[in-house]
Amino acid sequence: KKFKIAVIPGDGIGNEVTAEGVKVLNTYAEIKGNVEFSYEYFPWGCEYYLKTGKMMDDDGLKTLEAFDAILLGAVGDPSVPDHISLHGLLINIRQGFNQSINLRPIKLLQGAPCPLKDKGPQDIDFTVIRENVEGEYAGVGGFRFPGRPEEVALQTSVFSRKNTEKVMDYAFKLARKRKKFNKVTNVTKSNALNYSMVFWDKIFEEIATNYKDIKTETTHVDAVSMYFIQKPEVYDVLVASNLFGDIITDLGAALQGGLGFAASANLNLEKEYPSMFEPVHGSAPDIKGKQLANPIAMIWTAKMLLDFLLEEDDTEMIIDAITAVLQEEKTLTPDLKGKAKTHEVGDAICGKLKEI
Amino acid sequence: KKFKIAVIPGDGIGNEVTAEGVKVLNTYAEIKGNVEFSYEYFPWGCEYYLKTGKMMDDDGLKTLEAFDAILLGAVGDPSVPDHISLHGLLINIRQGFNQSINLRPIKLLQGAPCPLKDKGPQDIDFTVIRENVEGEYAGVGGFRFPGRPEEVALQTSVFSRKNTEKVMDYAFKLARKRKKFNKVTNVTKSNALNYSMVFWDKIFEEIATNYKDIKTETTHVDAVSMYFIQKPEVYDVLVASNLFGDIITDLGAALQGGLGFAASANLNLEKEYPSMFEPVHGSAPDIKGKQLANPIAMIWTAKMLLDFLLEEDDTEMIIDAITAVLQEEKTLTPDLKGKAKTHEVGDAICGKLKEI
Ligand SMILES: CC(C)[C@H](C(=O)O)[C@@H](O)C(=O)O
Ligand SMILES: CC(C)[C@H](C(=O)O)[C@@H](O)C(=O)O
Repeated sequence: KKFKIAVIPGDGIGNEVTAEGVKVLNTYAEIKGNVEFSYEYFPWGCEYYLKTGKMMDDDGLKTLEAFDAILLGAVGDPSVPDHISLHGLLINIRQGFNQSINLRPIKLLQGAPCPLKDKGPQDIDFTVIRENVEGEYAGVGGFRFPGRPEEVALQTSVFSRKNTEKVMDYAFKLARKRKKFNKVTNVTKSNALNYSMVFWDKIFEEIATNYKDIKTETTHVDAVSMYFIQKPEVYDVLVASNLFGDIITDLGAALQGGLGFAASANLNLEKEYPSMFEPVHGSAPDIKGKQLANPIAMIWTAKMLLDFLLEEDDTEMIIDAITAVLQEEKTLTPDLKGKAKTHEVGDAICGKLKEI
Repeated sequence: KKFKIAVIPGDGIGNEVTAEGVKVLNTYAEIKGNVEFSYEYFPWGCEYYLKTGKMMDDDGLKTLEAFDAILLGAVGDPSVPDHISLHGLLINIRQGFNQSINLRPIKLLQGAPCPLKDKGPQDIDFTVIRENVEGEYAGVGGFRFPGRPEEVALQTSVFSRKNTEKVMDYAFKLARKRKKFNKVTNVTKSNALNYSMVFWDKIFEEIATNYKDIKTETTHVDAVSMYFIQKPEVYDVLVASNLFGDIITDLGAALQGGLGFAASANLNLEKEYPSMFEPVHGSAPDIKGKQLANPIAMIWTAKMLLDFLLEEDDTEMIIDAITAVLQEEKTLTPDLKGKAKTHEVGDAICGKLKEI
């Protein structure tokens, strides 16, 4: 099996971490023998914008269509306003390729530092399904009476039945597959958002009727944020809107040891367009080029790419390799109190992979 | 000085906790000698709704106008959909009385249980200013093509210059008064919400120019949520939209020992209408009437009422009394691993107050 991967390192530490992701993909291919990856690199990002006025080429999506998957490092630089850089590249690809599902595992690995007093790896192990193409991120809105006392700004969330159903359905399927509690938690705020979240809850309940074997629970996003700290062990699969998913997955990242561990997959389930794999962390321009960035999130993300493309059941060995490095060796980056370089961590994990 | 307080116990544990709030107000008045409170009680809430079809009387706001302040317990019951009960009472009063500011202190008291490993009272001490009358809670939106495949739900956030300026301005004034770091953190999400939050940031920067002595920082809400766990000690005053403020204050509540400690004031700064004081916690219908509810949040909230009405500088003694009970005595409710009843905690705090 041959797969063509489009690599977009992006900004800041993007270059350094994608190199380690690619390294792990190649190591996996080497071990298996029957898989092959080829890569094409795209220089899109903030530097590109400063030169060309565009975050990616106008026909960029068309170009990317030819690939089986996209591996993206990080986007963002102080020299370009965030809403331009992100809407121009990351959000453009998510929405342009209808990557409805953003899959984000929150799992505290043995050896990763947990900030909570009484919780450990047995307590922190759930997955957030984040709606990824519409909702609060629809980009619909406007300004009126600019600069005048009566000035207003409007931002409209747009939730469609079709997409919401798809996201809910995926969450229930995943809960069945995970075999933890067979439970889906609906993250809502329908006590205040009297249209969007009332609708969201309605679709959740409709889809739930197709999954009578799966337990359900509906919790407001403010309470979920609190419970992540107080009782993370109650969660299995959570389904959340684009914005709520964004917030609770950063919170989840903190629980699992920081953004250095937060992996993410933007999935087009129908495979009509390529899916995109990117760690949750940003571009961290302050440490760019210094080989200080923790590549674990990107390596975990590469594992998610393998899961989606190959549907093999042996990719857990990548998590095992990460865990082995976390525990036995001191090959860790400074954020984990180690002294290793980004590429040394990647090498160590690939070394473990070959041993397993 | 005489003040007329409208008391709305509301649902669930509302009754029990407001009783303790009133007890503390009376004790304070007794100690001072020159203040007097009179109370009128209103039976509004979900029970009222089930009887009358209304969460509060049609002319309820008109009636409440005659009071100096409103003390509210909690709203919500499983028998009434949340968006009806909350919009009908809590949100109706906040918005109807133009209570633009929701002030929420996040402070870990000595003796309160903190869920974070390496943080203590010296690290967790900040205040969130939450926009409270518009934004995501504007209630604007609709449904189209109900039940059909093309069904959509829309929810529009509305941010006005006038109100946003007022909220920002209050945050800067508070930062100056707190004398901690003289810093305001702007909680945003302008990398994704390309109208509302871009506008929000713009007003923040405009108002900041009037406060050159105050440091500023702008952080996306997802990152703030993570930093609350990783480095709460960097915060002083945060200013957030209605929805973001809702989420991060529940998170903050977790840091300070749970909702049992989360106080809140809904302020109409101009005093054209009464302000409302309510703890952040919900109605907890499962423990209603059992005297199990922790009244500390309500007692702290009563302190905020005193601060707003009296502008005295001696109300810190209420916090001291709470802290004394937390540390010396075992007069605590079951959520704090004690065996005391709600009213016993109130009595103990009032006892300390008289000693101080
Ligand atoms: C960078 C930003 C636009 C993005 C988001 O909000 O989706 C990021 O925070 C994420 O979680 O992927
Ligand atoms: C009950 C709910 C409508 C309310 C809110 O979202 O404002 C509550 O969570 C709060 O924080 O006061």
